[in-house]
Amino acid sequence: MNLNVVIMAAGKGTRMRSALPKVLHKLAGLPLLQHVLRSSAELQAQRTVLVTGHGAEAVEATVGADVRCVRQMPQLGTGHAVQQAVPALDDTAGTTLILNGDVPLIRPATARALAEACAETKLALLTVTLADATGYGRIVRSADGQQILAIVEHKDASDAQRQIREVYTGMMAAPTAALKRWVAALKNDNAQQEFYLTDIVAMAVSEGVPVVSAQPADETEVLGVNSPLQLAELERRLQRRHAEAQMEAGVRLADPARFDQRGLLSCGQDVEIDVNCIFEGSVTLGDGVQVGANCVIRNATIAAGAQIRPFTHIDGEADGVTVGEGSLIGPFARLRPGAVLGREVHIGNFVEVKNSTLADGAKANHLAYLGDATVGARVNYGAGSITANYDGANKHRTVIGDDVHVGSNCVLIAPITLGAGGTIGGGSTISKNTPENQLTVSRAKQLSLPNWTRPVKVKKP
Amino acid sequence: MNLNVVIMAAGKGTRMRSALPKVLHKLAGLPLLQHVLRSSAELQAQRTVLVTGHGAEAVEATVGADVRCVRQMPQLGTGHAVQQAVPALDDTAGTTLILNGDVPLIRPATARALAEACAETKLALLTVTLADATGYGRIVRSADGQQILAIVEHKDASDAQRQIREVYTGMMAAPTAALKRWVAALKNDNAQQEFYLTDIVAMAVSEGVPVVSAQPADETEVLGVNSPLQLAELERRLQRRHAEAQMEAGVRLADPARFDQRGLLSCGQDVEIDVNCIFEGSVTLGDGVQVGANCVIRNATIAAGAQIRPFTHIDGEADGVTVGEGSLIGPFARLRPGAVLGREVHIGNFVEVKNSTLADGAKANHLAYLGDATVGARVNYGAGSITANYDGANKHRTVIGDDVHVGSNCVLIAPITLGAGGTIGGGSTISKNTPENQLTVSRAKQLSLPNWTRPVKVKKP
Amino acid sequence: MNLNVVIMAAGKGTRMRSALPKVLHKLAGLPLLQHVLRSSAELQAQRTVLVTGHGAEAVEATVGADVRCVRQMPQLGTGHAVQQAVPALDDTAGTTLILNGDVPLIRPATARALAEACAETKLALLTVTLADATGYGRIVRSADGQQILAIVEHKDASDAQRQIREVYTGMMAAPTAALKRWVAALKNDNAQQEFYLTDIVAMAVSEGVPVVSAQPADETEVLGVNSPLQLAELERRLQRRHAEAQMEAGVRLADPARFDQRGLLSCGQDVEIDVNCIFEGSVTLGDGVQVGANCVIRNATIAAGAQIRPFTHIDGEADGVTVGEGSLIGPFARLRPGAVLGREVHIGNFVEVKNSTLADGAKANHLAYLGDATVGARVNYGAGSITANYDGANKHRTVIGDDVHVGSNCVLIAPITLGAGGTIGGGSTISKNTPENQLTVSRAKQLSLPNWTRPVKVKKP
Repeated sequence: MNLNVVIMAAGKGTRMRSALPKVLHKLAGLPLLQHVLRSSAELQAQRTVLVTGHGAEAVEATVGADVRCVRQMPQLGTGHAVQQAVPALDDTAGTTLILNGDVPLIRPATARALAEACAETKLALLTVTLADATGYGRIVRSADGQQILAIVEHKDASDAQRQIREVYTGMMAAPTAALKRWVAALKNDNAQQEFYLTDIVAMAVSEGVPVVSAQPADETEVLGVNSPLQLAELERRLQRRHAEAQMEAGVRLADPARFDQRGLLSCGQDVEIDVNCIFEGSVTLGDGVQVGANCVIRNATIAAGAQIRPFTHIDGEADGVTVGEGSLIGPFARLRPGAVLGREVHIGNFVEVKNSTLADGAKANHLAYLGDATVGARVNYGAGSITANYDGANKHRTVIGDDVHVGSNCVLIAPITLGAGGTIGGGSTISKNTPENQLTVSRAKQLSLPNWTRPVKVKKP
Repeated sequence: MNLNVVIMAAGKGTRMRSALPKVLHKLAGLPLLQHVLRSSAELQAQRTVLVTGHGAEAVEATVGADVRCVRQMPQLGTGHAVQQAVPALDDTAGTTLILNGDVPLIRPATARALAEACAETKLALLTVTLADATGYGRIVRSADGQQILAIVEHKDASDAQRQIREVYTGMMAAPTAALKRWVAALKNDNAQQEFYLTDIVAMAVSEGVPVVSAQPADETEVLGVNSPLQLAELERRLQRRHAEAQMEAGVRLADPARFDQRGLLSCGQDVEIDVNCIFEGSVTLGDGVQVGANCVIRNATIAAGAQIRPFTHIDGEADGVTVGEGSLIGPFARLRPGAVLGREVHIGNFVEVKNSTLADGAKANHLAYLGDATVGARVNYGAGSITANYDGANKHRTVIGDDVHVGSNCVLIAPITLGAGGTIGGGSTISKNTPENQLTVSRAKQLSLPNWTRPVKVKKP
Repeated sequence: MNLNVVIMAAGKGTRMRSALPKVLHKLAGLPLLQHVLRSSAELQAQRTVLVTGHGAEAVEATVGADVRCVRQMPQLGTGHAVQQAVPALDDTAGTTLILNGDVPLIRPATARALAEACAETKLALLTVTLADATGYGRIVRSADGQQILAIVEHKDASDAQRQIREVYTGMMAAPTAALKRWVAALKNDNAQQEFYLTDIVAMAVSEGVPVVSAQPADETEVLGVNSPLQLAELERRLQRRHAEAQMEAGVRLADPARFDQRGLLSCGQDVEIDVNCIFEGSVTLGDGVQVGANCVIRNATIAAGAQIRPFTHIDGEADGVTVGEGSLIGPFARLRPGAVLGREVHIGNFVEVKNSTLADGAKANHLAYLGDATVGARVNYGAGSITANYDGANKHRTVIGDDVHVGSNCVLIAPITLGAGGTIGGGSTISKNTPENQLTVSRAKQLSLPNWTRPVKVKKP
């Protein structure tokens, strides 16, 4: 299909009450405009033209070089927006499809069907039939229903026309040449003094160009975002769609209404996800992974059989997090970028791991910090122990050999290496490398003071 | 308007199955009765009379001196309740408005409209039209609909009357003088042997006093609470109202159904609130504040640009908490009363801050406790470090100068002052003041034991 | 009632897309099959016969010796399944009731009513009337509605029959002797070449055996699980039922839609449960217990007046957890198996307690670990302090006498006993028993280095 795509993204979105241009507001973690661009990308159009206006610079900064941006300044209506796009259209592309940057959930198949209905020769409107069409522009058809005669705004509609439940969605496809001719002929002799794109329907009819329609698979595809309430409603619809798709693939969700997927979530067989979990960026869960309640997981790969217990926060940011097979993470664990855990690793409550590799069977079960560390197999890292990886200016590495047992409340002052098989006595501050297989301690003598008296509560004056 | 307000609050609420008087159960964090008193306060009545009964002492203890309390003992019906209130009414106030302590969401505008419909001369009933009126007292009107003739209980209603969907809500306004005369004339010659306030409608009709009506803006205003289920349903309706009001003002909520506001929440522009957050007491969020999933925030002021990450618990109780501009808090952080954070302060995972001031740029990123501390600018407070602020009897203060670097797992035994620019070596217990710009440590020598053998697992007998 | 119960549990559940047999998928924490077995157990049948097939070994391993298992290999239809069960039926039990292992919420009263409708002489079908019966087998009755004539599959139904909204649920009760005769006579001369149990309706009719019906109290009882979506929907319906039952009994839930009870939850008077809490196994909450938002509680007993603050994780596993009267737990606390807390115990943020007894008034308020410890009354256990209970091979016990004050960041190396009334200085590692009433410390001398220079940030190459 020889195709231009025009995406309207000039609107201010006053009701968003935001400093951010409307099309940059996020739905499921992605700007509205990106949703439209992703759908449109699947159409492989010759040219994609973005009409920007309010916050044009910010909007244009978010799109790739393959998108041509034209500015509509000031904003004088939808027809005026398309007028700005016309010079950027590829004339060899016989069909021009017009989408909206604030109507994010249009499916590629629907957009394609609309373009195909145009077929370079007709004016094709995307229409939808609503239970309650109040307020919308009605599609007036010929008696046999085949031919669209007009779009009539609600306020201009007769009582009979108001019974019509088929409405215009704001999306259309037109023969490129005709579109150019039509938008050039638009007039703004109306109360708002705006150029309305919908006025081209009358032009097509008068020229004898057939006006036809296509329909979305469901209403969600044509819902626009004009306010935080509409944004939230669309978010919930999209999340419901995500939840159903995951369940369809076999994922077991304890509550589809308390599931948020903001990006890609790829799940193996027999994955179970408890209530109130959030997945962001790109997350992969292997076969049999169990995710407990209230977890937040972003940019991470969790291997088969791992259990992520409640209240676990995993955020791989740019570097990612990897959890090995059969590992036990949480509750109240935090894995940060560069955490790479082997098989059967245990990370318990109030433990933070950052930019560290833990080999198979390593354990840090209680109140601990592992940063910039390389931890050997079967290491037991004691409660309250800390890698002092930051000297106030630079980060240094801690290397812990296989089978090391680090006692409780130790401080490992990096750069440092603990020899394999060694034991570090509880409460030790270790500032020099330790030998293999030996016990290393740093501990002051224990003394008791017989004549000591406890402090007494001082009354406040 | 010259007005008395009578609030009925004597009922037991058997279905609540609670030791607490019904009107003291909380909706959005506030007792039901307080909701009614807040609405009623806006009417600036001459006198507000509270009729108490079950749990009278507990109920009366919750209201201010401006509310006159009268007791209804025993409870012999709604008419009997008003009989108790009569002696406390201000006769110079021509209208008496009757509200219910267990119908919390009545809007001031609706209460005012009801009082105005009375206009010191008519009997005005608050009525509502329900989709299904089964069980409710029906409003029987004259053929022209202008005049109310009677309230007919469901069980006494004819088939034709049962088709009526306009019902009585339990709230009314009456001329004070007439009300006194009418309630004095009430009889209890019915099955329940109770005095029904609704019997005064017949008296008004027989005296030729016009009986008129007012209506609420929506049904939620007239919903009463008789059971935990009704309380929960009203809670969700009120929270939905809160969520919509916040979104209307521009706040972006990831899920309006998972948002709880129990008190005042004041938000700047471009505030984003993720799922499952709770706001209590008085909370202010500055421009661009982002609140992650699952946060609980009470009595706090968060300045512009601060990010509150998931699983953060902030509770200012009486003293409040202040978070400065651009600060990063959480995940898994806890800010307690008297935490006052400057600009760009970082409080990370498993860190607790109580009654402490942190100057601009200070950081406590991992597993730490700051209690009763004054922390200078740019201080880096190490992982696992603790202010030992409590000697078992008294709390003492820790003062940390600007630019101090406190190593990991340190103990600072208060009262103590760490001089500016100093460094405290990891694992140190500091019991004496430290000089500026020097390294201070308290550390035992590190020793390794070559002939040491590891403990061996003992088999249980 | 002389009764056999047959439970059909041979199906694969292809749409579950799971390696787990369908009837072992969990609803409210319990396998679907166990729900059916629990309901059926109340009928006190002579014999319960389970028909297994897909995953037979796994399914059979989950049931007790009182259930006779027969295998259906291969699976040739519902009639074929009952054919396998026939040899295992008790002939002295005149009625045989057929239930489905994937229809979990059947109430005992409904199952009993169905068996009683059979009365050892009739064929009784469990039927339900649906708003939309599309796709279901319709119940065709005689003109007077008294006698059931046939079950007609949707695809075989006439237009008139498709208007019927009464459908067959898959559950029936039949005279045992007749059932044996009928299933032996089933034929598989149909498109699927399966033996359909529903074909016995025609046999009963032709023999003049009355075909009657019973109905469930509500539709939820007859909903089957064929996909993760259906499982999730049933989960939410069941959780709504749990929430309503708790509220009916007086429990106050902040949001019934965010409440999950997976097992038994027994609550005293005036219990309040905030949003997003999960209760698993067997949990008891005493009078006035308050559970904050986002708590996960499993196998625990919480005494009257205790407050469980937000983000608390309690899991008693097999050993249980006990929280005493008036205790304060959380936020961000974790109680593990064998935690036994007395009255007025405080467990604060980032504190973990495992297999430890804390006597009345003991406190561990900040970042601490108590494992395998016996803690006396009124002990104050300092921030960051750790019981080093594990030497890498064995667990040892820590005993802390009454009124001991343990300072911050201490390590108690078990086995060890701290004498009553003693104080342990902050930062001490204690490896030997300590005397009563004395101050015991292990602390290196504090030194400052005047000529020390801070590390300088190294630029990365």
